[in-house]
Amino acid sequence: MSVTAPSGFAASGVVAGLKASGKRDLALVKNLGPLTAAAAVFTTNRCKANPVLWSEQVIQDGMVSAIVLNSGGANCYTGAQGFQTTHATAEAVAEQLEVSAGDVLVCSTGLIGDQLPVEKLIAGVSSAAAALATDAGLGAAEAIMTTDTRPKEAAHRAPEGWTIGGMAKGAGMLAPGLATMLVVLTTDAVLSSEQLDAALRSATRVTFDRLDSDGCMSTNDTVALLGSGASGVEPDEAAFTLALTAVCRDLAEQLQADAEGASHDIAIEVVGAASEDDAVTVGRAVSRSNLFKAAIFGNDPNWGRVLAAVGTTDAEFDPYGIDVAINGVQICTGGEPDQPRDLVDLTPRKVHILIDLHAGEQTATILTNDLTHDYVHENSAYAS
Amino acid sequence: MSVTAPSGFAASGVVAGLKASGKRDLALVKNLGPLTAAAAVFTTNRCKANPVLWSEQVIQDGMVSAIVLNSGGANCYTGAQGFQTTHATAEAVAEQLEVSAGDVLVCSTGLIGDQLPVEKLIAGVSSAAAALATDAGLGAAEAIMTTDTRPKEAAHRAPEGWTIGGMAKGAGMLAPGLATMLVVLTTDAVLSSEQLDAALRSATRVTFDRLDSDGCMSTNDTVALLGSGASGVEPDEAAFTLALTAVCRDLAEQLQADAEGASHDIAIEVVGAASEDDAVTVGRAVSRSNLFKAAIFGNDPNWGRVLAAVGTTDAEFDPYGIDVAINGVQICTGGEPDQPRDLVDLTPRKVHILIDLHAGEQTATILTNDLTHDYVHENSAYAS
Repeated sequence: MSVTAPSGFAASGVVAGLKASGKRDLALVKNLGPLTAAAAVFTTNRCKANPVLWSEQVIQDGMVSAIVLNSGGANCYTGAQGFQTTHATAEAVAEQLEVSAGDVLVCSTGLIGDQLPVEKLIAGVSSAAAALATDAGLGAAEAIMTTDTRPKEAAHRAPEGWTIGGMAKGAGMLAPGLATMLVVLTTDAVLSSEQLDAALRSATRVTFDRLDSDGCMSTNDTVALLGSGASGVEPDEAAFTLALTAVCRDLAEQLQADAEGASHDIAIEVVGAASEDDAVTVGRAVSRSNLFKAAIFGNDPNWGRVLAAVGTTDAEFDPYGIDVAINGVQICTGGEPDQPRDLVDLTPRKVHILIDLHAGEQTATILTNDLTHDYVHENSAYAS
Repeated sequence: MSVTAPSGFAASGVVAGLKASGKRDLALVKNLGPLTAAAAVFTTNRCKANPVLWSEQVIQDGMVSAIVLNSGGANCYTGAQGFQTTHATAEAVAEQLEVSAGDVLVCSTGLIGDQLPVEKLIAGVSSAAAALATDAGLGAAEAIMTTDTRPKEAAHRAPEGWTIGGMAKGAGMLAPGLATMLVVLTTDAVLSSEQLDAALRSATRVTFDRLDSDGCMSTNDTVALLGSGASGVEPDEAAFTLALTAVCRDLAEQLQADAEGASHDIAIEVVGAASEDDAVTVGRAVSRSNLFKAAIFGNDPNWGRVLAAVGTTDAEFDPYGIDVAINGVQICTGGEPDQPRDLVDLTPRKVHILIDLHAGEQTATILTNDLTHDYVHENSAYAS
């Protein structure tokens, strides 16, 4: 159901001819109202793609009528011509949907440094506008896929009568600051753009921001939340934020499970930290150790590589006060070997690393993947 | 010639039985004097191996009579028992060579978290002491190899009559802060430990510290410089530092060329930076991008991944003011595509990435490697 799960939204996914494969490559989501409240967060990469530069302006007033997304090209580092392409795409959507171009978010994903064919984009927008339907969320989710092997959708229906829906893409280049992911969330709850913004930032901070598949940060990431108000129900804000966080976590786990070439989904849970920042720092350091990630690929419970990564951080800990458990087996206690490595079973796809710093009460979990032959293969052959 | 190139040093490399392969695994270098001045730098990882904890104490007074190095086990995260093993090794060397244990540096390399067999180490020290010879540098260089495919040696003879020699090991886990490398440098120049220390820090800052093969920082890295004074010549300090830097660069490039599984040696040269720190930060960010490294493995001149990595830093630059050239072909000018990708030939092992930030006059070069199937293979099978 994805973005069309809440009332007040129509979506479509069409073939604009941007992908060599001939698959769907352009998605459109229209907010049917009565409200057009919205919020969005973007990559923190300083090298931002043209659609991000455009959309950052669009979201300023908290009003979004539609969002158009293309795969088949990132439109990043394409200069003034690339920005014109983004602008022309928004104008085409505005014309087709009879809204203001200044209320149209644009997202692109694909290779950096190539110009997008603007005529194909504009023709695609016409087709997408014609195909808009209130039950076409799946087609839209398919149209934003790049190396994703499956579309990612999630929805939550509150007993009070409001709904949240969402779709996401992202398979490589997943990292903090929202890396190469495009996510569109919709809701028919009655909320202002300020309320949507607060809920969105709260939800992404502990979900997408803690997904660090390969440490690489994209130039194009966007997470947008559109509110139609069509349910007529004003939700409890805390309950809405909780539900939105659950939908974001669901999508983040789908992104992790479909990460390029991965054979293990790794949750690095850091407990006993002096601060939440310390816990995140430690989890992220481990998630970025290629040696650790390659060991997990080889089903090797190499806790020494975990501690070597922990040791590169400035978090509060005593090197001889750290415990490490892998998949429930306590293999390191107080910085010394405990249970034998052989007891750890790393054959399941899900891997749980538990690091206890014994330095406080705070905790955080970072989601990552292993480093595999398939990751190297997919990312060495991307442009060819 | 390595560590025995200067006069006043004897070395040996023997089989202590620590390596399952039965190859040489214990090296000993003795300073024959008349001076026993020394300096050393160690990993900045907060999780330090026992031999590092020991050696940090030994170097305090700037006097070192001998250095003993073993492969076959890192002796890291092995607790009080592991520290006792290091201490016992130093005591064995002291007894054999009739020096003080407090003047014996100890280095270990191999898997983290396993105890070393102390009896084998002590017996190995006896054999090594018996085998000491002033022309046995190669055997010592062989004994410190782990996944290295060849020993690394370098030497420089100054016309004024003094010499610098060196040996190094390190193949994976090469990163800043001196990661998994063990390096022993020797000289017969007449210099105090303070002079040696100043020269060593100056040389490592622009050589080993700028080698970042896989972003992983080791728990065991040590670079030691021993001075025998046997040439009787007091060198010009600037000339000595220059020569030492050249020897360190030579060894660093040998480490890069033999990095685990690598198929390309990549030099990332950042120019036009506002500060040297900025240049290092940018080079290091690119060297740690798995997407960039996998692209180079696939002979794909994917400059978008270079700029995406640059964009994660806080260095001074305008995203639309950056030029990128790969192997001499200017493929990006002012943040836009320039020459066609096809013109870039990435088939040679040596790769040169030139990034001009157009933000100042400073420069730095980071050495790294590509991310290959063989890297993943070697590091997933390490412990098994």
